[in-house]
Amino acid sequence: MRISILGVGLIGGSIGLAARRIEGTTVSGFDPDPAAIASARQLGAIDEPGATVAQTLAGADVCFLCAPVNALPGLARAALELGGDCVVSDVGSTKSALIESLASSGLAEDHLARFVGGHPLAGAEAAGVEYARAELFEGATWYLTPTERTSGMLYERLYRTITGLGARPEAIAADLHDRVMATISHLPHVLANVLASQAARAVADDAERLPATGPSFRDATRVAGANPGLWREILLANREAVGAELERFGRELERVGARLREGDADALERWIEDARADRRKLQEADLPGGPVTEVRVSVPNRPGIVAQLSLAIGEAGVNIVDMALYPAADMQSGAIALWVAGDRSAERVLELIRELGYPASVVDPGGE
Amino acid sequence: MRISILGVGLIGGSIGLAARRIEGTTVSGFDPDPAAIASARQLGAIDEPGATVAQTLAGADVCFLCAPVNALPGLARAALELGGDCVVSDVGSTKSALIESLASSGLAEDHLARFVGGHPLAGAEAAGVEYARAELFEGATWYLTPTERTSGMLYERLYRTITGLGARPEAIAADLHDRVMATISHLPHVLANVLASQAARAVADDAERLPATGPSFRDATRVAGANPGLWREILLANREAVGAELERFGRELERVGARLREGDADALERWIEDARADRRKLQEADLPGGPVTEVRVSVPNRPGIVAQLSLAIGEAGVNIVDMALYPAADMQSGAIALWVAGDRSAERVLELIRELGYPASVVDPGGE
Repeated sequence: MRISILGVGLIGGSIGLAARRIEGTTVSGFDPDPAAIASARQLGAIDEPGATVAQTLAGADVCFLCAPVNALPGLARAALELGGDCVVSDVGSTKSALIESLASSGLAEDHLARFVGGHPLAGAEAAGVEYARAELFEGATWYLTPTERTSGMLYERLYRTITGLGARPEAIAADLHDRVMATISHLPHVLANVLASQAARAVADDAERLPATGPSFRDATRVAGANPGLWREILLANREAVGAELERFGRELERVGARLREGDADALERWIEDARADRRKLQEADLPGGPVTEVRVSVPNRPGIVAQLSLAIGEAGVNIVDMALYPAADMQSGAIALWVAGDRSAERVLELIRELGYPASVVDPGGE
Repeated sequence: MRISILGVGLIGGSIGLAARRIEGTTVSGFDPDPAAIASARQLGAIDEPGATVAQTLAGADVCFLCAPVNALPGLARAALELGGDCVVSDVGSTKSALIESLASSGLAEDHLARFVGGHPLAGAEAAGVEYARAELFEGATWYLTPTERTSGMLYERLYRTITGLGARPEAIAADLHDRVMATISHLPHVLANVLASQAARAVADDAERLPATGPSFRDATRVAGANPGLWREILLANREAVGAELERFGRELERVGARLREGDADALERWIEDARADRRKLQEADLPGGPVTEVRVSVPNRPGIVAQLSLAIGEAGVNIVDMALYPAADMQSGAIALWVAGDRSAERVLELIRELGYPASVVDPGGE
């Protein structure tokens, strides 16, 4: 099989590396940046660099478009017009706009039959082919958005290829995909941005000094201001779904505001309890190994404590699913939250930490 | 000096332990839960348990009310009516409602002169006297909200006591305090709750399965559903300020929605860049040691890696200010984000991590 990759960054390079495990596969690659191509060859991510898109695609069975979201419609059109028997897919984080743009582009039906939108849920944490790794997609959801035009044979070829890369392909309607991404990814980015700006201006009229913040604020604004050029394009490409989610969110904020004004204590408490249940459901849907339990540890914040805990827990064979540090203002002490999968893991972790002499407890799902 | 603590949990117990460093101090304590009193005595947090509020307060110079927010008005009134020369303060996370309740309670002016609202920014991470520690307030901001009624002499006594506990007292108007807390603490909790519920329902109409989420979603919903009973009371006690912040937030969401509808790419990008600048200003206001730099590392997610990195960084004498793990879906690989203070620390960390063989980079404030 011949796989063509147009755009060799973190995702394109990782596809090339992961394709090594599919027997008898040759990978061709194109990137406007010669340095990216040179790195990709050195890493073994591509076998054959192409000088042009046409040269790279010649004889390809599967083509992955790994370019920025705003370059995808033009690139997809060019790849499809080159003809052949190649299934063309992409890895962009929004799908409807691209599919609509192709449908209204005047491309012939047999060209449109060869396109399947795609989106692997992996690799958002760093950019550049130097971060590429063969395991990037291992066990990851890889959304595919076939339409009624899609050739069944070509869809099956793409599906098999993605399984070969180690991912779990999952078919989803393009508009549902975009709504889901709007909620779990695009909306949190918008909220983080608005919150960071609102806090920076909160005291501007009354005081000189910015307020000291805390761990919940740090968590909530961690992605604020991330990659403005990329996020501008993602938000624009998914503007309808993001706009709808913003409106839903705004209406729910109004409902919370009304409960506050009315002083309805019972409704507020039920609302917070429901949010706790919803958060746990989402966490559990996310992760292998059963329910996730949070363990809180109170520690001095000197260098080496995180290492000591991680080593002890690692030696016991328990993997930490997620971790957050909550340093006190002096940076000399604080708390560590560890999320581990499975109740028995949590008990084991609790025991280990107490043996090391730190107070620790499982965070009660009903309390905090 | 004699310090009285009414309510011996994490905060009350830590005040008692920290008071050990103020020479010649005796600590009396009261709690409705006999087990809390027994633990506090065993830890050395209190010298003299009182059977009643009156007995505990007898002869006190400074009294800290460390009860739940909704119990504070009654407790403050009782403590002030007992007379004497004691300055009475509290540690609740909202201030205006309590001060207004006392002002309209019919208490005599010389009673009101003895009350100063207080709020240490510490200890939100766990509850219970077993987590109490002498260093909890070291270097922490401790807001004080004196009014025009407050006795200057008693305010100075309280101020000196809090400095003795290791904290940095900071005077702030009660309403400004409540607005600041609404923005940096109460609003993020509301947003996390709404986001968790919205995501859990995002696909309910269309699909059986909850969507897989990602690290930005996990960060944004970390505090969702935290301690419903406590947060119900905090939100109600600060309902005006939280309501106003919710409205401001809603209006800003509408502005973002309008920019999306108009497809104004430049305005969107400028808005994200402004959020980045605002986030950095807040981070730098927060932390000693200058600007905070984020270092991203790409690693296999096996037990021991966090330990290996932490040990190497700790041995170099660099303290990690904040940390986030972004595991890939397979839990076998992922990225680690480390926040360190100072550019030279970041360079040193980068060098160490690369020596260990992992790809790492400083997250460019202009990119991601």
